[in-house]
Amino acid sequence: MSHCYLQCLRFSNVLSNHAVSVNGYVCKDPNLVQADDFFLSGVNVPGNTSNALGSYVTHFFVANYPALNTLSVSMARIDYAPYGLNPPHYHPRASEILTVLEGTLEVGFVTSSTYNPANQLISKVLQKGDAFVFPEALVHFQQNLGHSPAVALATFSSQNPDVNTIANTVFGTNPEIPSYILAKAFQVSKSVIKEIQSQF
Amino acid sequence: MSHCYLQCLRFSNVLSNHAVSVNGYVCKDPNLVQADDFFLSGVNVPGNTSNALGSYVTHFFVANYPALNTLSVSMARIDYAPYGLNPPHYHPRASEILTVLEGTLEVGFVTSSTYNPANQLISKVLQKGDAFVFPEALVHFQQNLGHSPAVALATFSSQNPDVNTIANTVFGTNPEIPSYILAKAFQVSKSVIKEIQSQF
Amino acid sequence: MSHCYLQCLRFSNVLSNHAVSVNGYVCKDPNLVQADDFFLSGVNVPGNTSNALGSYVTHFFVANYPALNTLSVSMARIDYAPYGLNPPHYHPRASEILTVLEGTLEVGFVTSSTYNPANQLISKVLQKGDAFVFPEALVHFQQNLGHSPAVALATFSSQNPDVNTIANTVFGTNPEIPSYILAKAFQVSKSVIKEIQSQF
Amino acid sequence: MSHCYLQCLRFSNVLSNHAVSVNGYVCKDPNLVQADDFFLSGVNVPGNTSNALGSYVTHFFVANYPALNTLSVSMARIDYAPYGLNPPHYHPRASEILTVLEGTLEVGFVTSSTYNPANQLISKVLQKGDAFVFPEALVHFQQNLGHSPAVALATFSSQNPDVNTIANTVFGTNPEIPSYILAKAFQVSKSVIKEIQSQF
Amino acid sequence: MSHCYLQCLRFSNVLSNHAVSVNGYVCKDPNLVQADDFFLSGVNVPGNTSNALGSYVTHFFVANYPALNTLSVSMARIDYAPYGLNPPHYHPRASEILTVLEGTLEVGFVTSSTYNPANQLISKVLQKGDAFVFPEALVHFQQNLGHSPAVALATFSSQNPDVNTIANTVFGTNPEIPSYILAKAFQVSKSVIKEIQSQF
Amino acid sequence: MSHCYLQCLRFSNVLSNHAVSVNGYVCKDPNLVQADDFFLSGVNVPGNTSNALGSYVTHFFVANYPALNTLSVSMARIDYAPYGLNPPHYHPRASEILTVLEGTLEVGFVTSSTYNPANQLISKVLQKGDAFVFPEALVHFQQNLGHSPAVALATFSSQNPDVNTIANTVFGTNPEIPSYILAKAFQVSKSVIKEIQSQF
Repeated sequence: MSHCYLQCLRFSNVLSNHAVSVNGYVCKDPNLVQADDFFLSGVNVPGNTSNALGSYVTHFFVANYPALNTLSVSMARIDYAPYGLNPPHYHPRASEILTVLEGTLEVGFVTSSTYNPANQLISKVLQKGDAFVFPEALVHFQQNLGHSPAVALATFSSQNPDVNTIANTVFGTNPEIPSYILAKAFQVSKSVIKEIQSQF
Repeated sequence: MSHCYLQCLRFSNVLSNHAVSVNGYVCKDPNLVQADDFFLSGVNVPGNTSNALGSYVTHFFVANYPALNTLSVSMARIDYAPYGLNPPHYHPRASEILTVLEGTLEVGFVTSSTYNPANQLISKVLQKGDAFVFPEALVHFQQNLGHSPAVALATFSSQNPDVNTIANTVFGTNPEIPSYILAKAFQVSKSVIKEIQSQF
Repeated sequence: MSHCYLQCLRFSNVLSNHAVSVNGYVCKDPNLVQADDFFLSGVNVPGNTSNALGSYVTHFFVANYPALNTLSVSMARIDYAPYGLNPPHYHPRASEILTVLEGTLEVGFVTSSTYNPANQLISKVLQKGDAFVFPEALVHFQQNLGHSPAVALATFSSQNPDVNTIANTVFGTNPEIPSYILAKAFQVSKSVIKEIQSQF
Repeated sequence: MSHCYLQCLRFSNVLSNHAVSVNGYVCKDPNLVQADDFFLSGVNVPGNTSNALGSYVTHFFVANYPALNTLSVSMARIDYAPYGLNPPHYHPRASEILTVLEGTLEVGFVTSSTYNPANQLISKVLQKGDAFVFPEALVHFQQNLGHSPAVALATFSSQNPDVNTIANTVFGTNPEIPSYILAKAFQVSKSVIKEIQSQF
Repeated sequence: MSHCYLQCLRFSNVLSNHAVSVNGYVCKDPNLVQADDFFLSGVNVPGNTSNALGSYVTHFFVANYPALNTLSVSMARIDYAPYGLNPPHYHPRASEILTVLEGTLEVGFVTSSTYNPANQLISKVLQKGDAFVFPEALVHFQQNLGHSPAVALATFSSQNPDVNTIANTVFGTNPEIPSYILAKAFQVSKSVIKEIQSQF
Repeated sequence: MSHCYLQCLRFSNVLSNHAVSVNGYVCKDPNLVQADDFFLSGVNVPGNTSNALGSYVTHFFVANYPALNTLSVSMARIDYAPYGLNPPHYHPRASEILTVLEGTLEVGFVTSSTYNPANQLISKVLQKGDAFVFPEALVHFQQNLGHSPAVALATFSSQNPDVNTIANTVFGTNPEIPSYILAKAFQVSKSVIKEIQSQF
């Protein structure tokens, strides 16, 4: 169980020398542990939102915050340009609480296709100080409704939530998913599919 | 833990009368348990593939196979018409082994957007007797490559894997996700979005 | 497993009528779920720090944020008066990431008595935008070093982390732990013990 | 948790060179992962049932299907000669769904000795397309009732279910369990015990 | 997770009135909890070993020690008459540490049939103050080697380990497993099988 | 999961040569496993209670009983001089059953500070053969009430429960927790704090 061991830090040298990773990360010798192993800075640094979506997500997952190893929790900071969008995506291994630090966001998630009622959009407009829950592995998004930047802090129930952005996962893969598959899946012509694929 | 209790069957009467469900299902009195509580029929019955996608998935999840309660395993039978497609989808709570019982299938899954390398399509053509693994919560699909029907059996690592079909989860929600959000997410015009949404 | 079910909300009426709780909370009928069930407000509202310690912790645990049921994550907001202290305490069921939103905090945790090296204090001064990890169930504290109020946001790896404040758990119990036990445990006279107990 | 990591493949070279195994398997470098790492063939290949029991079990566990590492699911194919038997056995670490692909099987499992009612045989005759659940670690068996071969597919809730065949575990150990112990346990003479032991 | 909640006691009245059990036990109102809810007596009371096996196991599982609910631990006291036997059995849901309080015991367990090396008997003679580990769900036994009574204390990694005694689970079921199945499984005549079955 | 693998022993040579530990312990080659790997002696050996507290705890955790690796259970023997005290402490990763083997003990634990009712002392006097449960990570103690030595056996729900003794964790850390923090936390003068700190 993840709570079986006190604190297990990634021991970078071993990893890089051996080029081996196990079901988790190798641990640092407890005698060598120091305060900086538990420390993180930069949560207050805005990400660069000058991109097509107008948003930027800074992840604080175990890969760049090794103190989280075995602890089943992590974070992310999300910056939104005016009218910026954190597009539909899901986290394969985590539930999320999103807290609005600045601005006004329209947020939503979609229930599963076999859930009853199916494919229900659960959405709400959030103000500064509001929070919303996105249950594990469900598609969700946030849209900045204001003409000022917005900021949110997300907390996750896994050290390694991972992110699947729908547009990239379906239309921006390497290699591409064959267009005859996507055309049938989305019930549109191959040319529409190719138009979308060309964006990614 | 799910393995803490022998066998915990859903006690339908209690559920239907009380309209209450707990974190799982209510158990049947062990003195009333009989063989039929563990039994399922119809795995050999083809589903009706006369639909736009040319495929049909018959789920054997805990909701219709209550013996699976607490056991962390379930199944599905998938039928494919000639050139039928089980479109891109994912299971929020389960990994899957897909085994081909009849026919030839092109299958694939996509790695996560934050995974390195990101959004990689891992695909292969499977023949009868072949199997493929779709890790938990990753987008995957199967395409019948033959002009004959195909059949596959899927096994899952959860009693309740759930299914999120990408097209329905994004373009067929109730209510709809606003078109200005999807247009920005997929980098196409609102009219293309509305065209796709109109199919669902 | 906690990730076996989509979203399981506490159904308050059932709980209050039946005065019964199971190993978790009773679920709301999915057909009755709405956006407000996932919503929380007030994370931006400062707590009242006019008390002996000069700090106030506002918990957002499953008990007052029922959307968290089965999701293994929760939060707290901590306000510190100038030189205020969140005194030594531990969470029996959660690891924590503490992020400084405003001010300068001295934070620390103590390794276990059987850990090698034992009873090591791991501490650091944090500025705005810094974070620190307190591993599950270890004693930790935060001290505001500045003459201005400070604010931090804590995230936890459990829906119900619980809190054990050392001073209250040892010297403020109901009934009191006998003074001859505490005198021997802390190697001081009973009068010193009674002096401390009288504060709680 | 098993769902904390995307996909962790056994990296055979590392394992064989170092002769070390950890609590799981060492992972393959994600940049080297390819479709064949998730692929399995031969599920349609009948096992050789020309043996005393008239059955053969082909396991697809993590040891020979490394893609299953961390995914908590696995499979087996069971072939039965006419009137062949898969003898009483249990899986220490998995529940099972058995699906009949061909033929007619009498199947059963036994509840625990401390369960109430104790040592109850739960059995049923299955036809093609029927399935039956064997809860984790309970003794179960399948008997081909027909004069034609039969085939079943078993799915398990563990990547490494393991198998304990009662006859071999009790009467075929190395070294043997002393006959005075087995004679008392089964309440028969030592000569009967030795007769059974001589078969294994 | 079992460690998500403080202490969840079985609330007997609710259970008996409603004849319903969930995936665990219903909890007592925290305001009504008292010391006796955590208390057990009688661990020092010898069991009656005047039976064919010359042993008696007193279980302290969640069913008769409700304080253990959700805590993943339980115990048993085992008394052995001179040359008494605790016969081959396994616990479907727990590992065990057996500690000898009085006397001399020969103990052993058997590795799995698919384990390499398969069906290996791991055994040793224990004296007072010795302990031995029986890993989860493996067949094990203890034989008193002395002409005086012996006593052992067993601790388990589950609140509800359950017990499957091989002889009863195979030869003493209700109804009986058909003799043609057991004759083939143990490779002896039906008459030998019936002789054994008649003992149970 | 901890129950995914048969038996995983720490392979000391590998550990000492490589100076690396992973999220658990490295496993011994199954072909080299022997009975002594599962064996422990000395549970009947009294600890030396000639110290200020008049008690001694002998741990049988995975660190000195490697057979426990992955098995989620461990033990401790506690010896008490006449009127000896096992002082207030908690186990960050385990629940405990304490069984009195000899003597008369006053035992107690304290509920959490946010639990309702908060900081409640649950205590009872135990005689030989009595047991008491201390739920995971709650502060508890045992006081020998008699003028003869007492002995207890503790069983834990983790292979590595760890121990946090309150006095040492708060007043005996290295380096010390600043006295202005402890003075405010316990609402006494710095001189009282320094008096206590000087004892450790």
